[in-house]
Amino acid sequence: MSGLDEFSLIARLFAPLAARHPGALGLTDDAALIDGPEGRQWAVTADAMVAGVHFLPDDPPDLIARKLIRVNLSDLAAMGARPFAVLLASCFPRDVTGDWLDRFASGLKTDCEEFSIALIGGDTVATPGPLTLALTAIGDVGRNSALLRSNARSGDDIWVSGTIGDSAFGLMVGRGEPVPVGPAERQWLLERYRLPRPRTTLGPALVGLAGAAMDISDGLVGDLGHICETSGVGAVIEAEKVPLSDAVRMAISAGFGSIVTVLTGGDDYELLFSAPAERATAIEALGRELDLRLTPIGRIIEGEGVRVEDSDGRALSLSGGGYRHFGG
Amino acid sequence: MSGLDEFSLIARLFAPLAARHPGALGLTDDAALIDGPEGRQWAVTADAMVAGVHFLPDDPPDLIARKLIRVNLSDLAAMGARPFAVLLASCFPRDVTGDWLDRFASGLKTDCEEFSIALIGGDTVATPGPLTLALTAIGDVGRNSALLRSNARSGDDIWVSGTIGDSAFGLMVGRGEPVPVGPAERQWLLERYRLPRPRTTLGPALVGLAGAAMDISDGLVGDLGHICETSGVGAVIEAEKVPLSDAVRMAISAGFGSIVTVLTGGDDYELLFSAPAERATAIEALGRELDLRLTPIGRIIEGEGVRVEDSDGRALSLSGGGYRHFGG
Repeated sequence: MSGLDEFSLIARLFAPLAARHPGALGLTDDAALIDGPEGRQWAVTADAMVAGVHFLPDDPPDLIARKLIRVNLSDLAAMGARPFAVLLASCFPRDVTGDWLDRFASGLKTDCEEFSIALIGGDTVATPGPLTLALTAIGDVGRNSALLRSNARSGDDIWVSGTIGDSAFGLMVGRGEPVPVGPAERQWLLERYRLPRPRTTLGPALVGLAGAAMDISDGLVGDLGHICETSGVGAVIEAEKVPLSDAVRMAISAGFGSIVTVLTGGDDYELLFSAPAERATAIEALGRELDLRLTPIGRIIEGEGVRVEDSDGRALSLSGGGYRHFGG
Repeated sequence: MSGLDEFSLIARLFAPLAARHPGALGLTDDAALIDGPEGRQWAVTADAMVAGVHFLPDDPPDLIARKLIRVNLSDLAAMGARPFAVLLASCFPRDVTGDWLDRFASGLKTDCEEFSIALIGGDTVATPGPLTLALTAIGDVGRNSALLRSNARSGDDIWVSGTIGDSAFGLMVGRGEPVPVGPAERQWLLERYRLPRPRTTLGPALVGLAGAAMDISDGLVGDLGHICETSGVGAVIEAEKVPLSDAVRMAISAGFGSIVTVLTGGDDYELLFSAPAERATAIEALGRELDLRLTPIGRIIEGEGVRVEDSDGRALSLSGGGYRHFGG
């Protein structure tokens, strides 16, 4: 069955089981919310990664561990939550070596320190299949302050952090495709793919500024579509405003890939958020304070769906709605 | 490398990452603790299950889902926590059918209702390997009231709930071994293996009565060894006091299996707990109230390790320390 059918089926089957707890947000957001102490809430999210699907079996073990953590912290950031702890369920192939485990644990340690989080639990089992890892991440956010996908309103600006599409081009570098950039740019793109940088400082700082937020994991346009669907709005992106790195700009100029790759490529792990127009100055100031590029790329409108416009206001056609893990 | 080496290595590698958060309990307990609202704590635990390791690929999908939930709720019960919500990370083989998913979701639904919990999040990905599931369960317990493995004290009685060993014999039934009992007993043993009954009511009711507690998943003696190690004590079990079901008693009487199978078999998911001797009357009353067999089987002593004695006080020799998932 196709990826899309699968997703719908799962939404249909699993979402009703969320009804009992409002903090589950109908399984439509980056994380669930449960009550914490004294005016706080815990955001809780879980992501799985499988060798050969989400990373290559011979990727460096420390990078696998760090990507797993970062992908989850990115979900927390998208809720405006500050990372606190993780639980790790590891299914190791029986031929895993002590050296491999050492390097894997070393990656965990590096990022636990980098992001001031603790490993507080989990499970370790053997698998006859590929290395499979599931991480649950817990972060804290003020009660009723989380950045929800459902908070986009018509008239809001749409913003993104960092540059978009680097990871899609980095994956092509990793696959050995002839991305026409210099060795330094190739390495930089590959790093962007292998080791995303979750916006753990930006996310909590956006509480009170942003309306809706999510992290871009399945592609900018597809993910913005999720915000639109959950908020009951539409969106327009101005393609030429989408911030590109020098490396991606260089590759596209040389005729490799296109803005469609940028708009639909996955694994950016930048934050995508909406905000009322009057907060633009405060958001720009925040970007300067964090030394992080924050760029308005369009606006939320009434209606539904995401329209991408070129500089003449003409709709740009995209094939497909982004990367989907199932079938992918 | 052997199962034991693997476990030690992981403990050595992962436990230091827990140091930042005291509620991680050094990764030595059934769940971690984080602060909840108004004098409560959340107990959080994660377990993974792999087709071909923890269940058979052609097991009924609803039972796979329900066992996954129950194994995790058993960990919460062992902390004295009341189940609240779960997150599910599913790695489905690409050939999974809509019918299979329907039945799997139906099992989730049954047990979400049975235990009054919500599915609040997770992830769904494809795997080229076997079906792999990781569940995170969250339950609540009064602050500083959780039943910790480290709370066993010399002189305490050792108690178990239910009957022990049914699951080990049930697994043999499932494997088609000639367990010499009637068809009704065979079916009952198989059910005990396939669909454990987490002691979700008993666990919270033991807060204030029990000292240490854990659920029996790797075998009674091995698991009691964990309590001893964490509490810095030893233990003596009187073999003839270990409560057996009629079916297991019948099988052993007919020369199939032995008390060693009972003492070291895994997957019981009964609660094992210690309690000061003066609480025996209250614990017996609780058992009557819950209509659940609660049996004292020995005592905590100074020293270390677990000694099993026969009715003459002679040490019983057991080969191995219980079922270990790694290598198993």
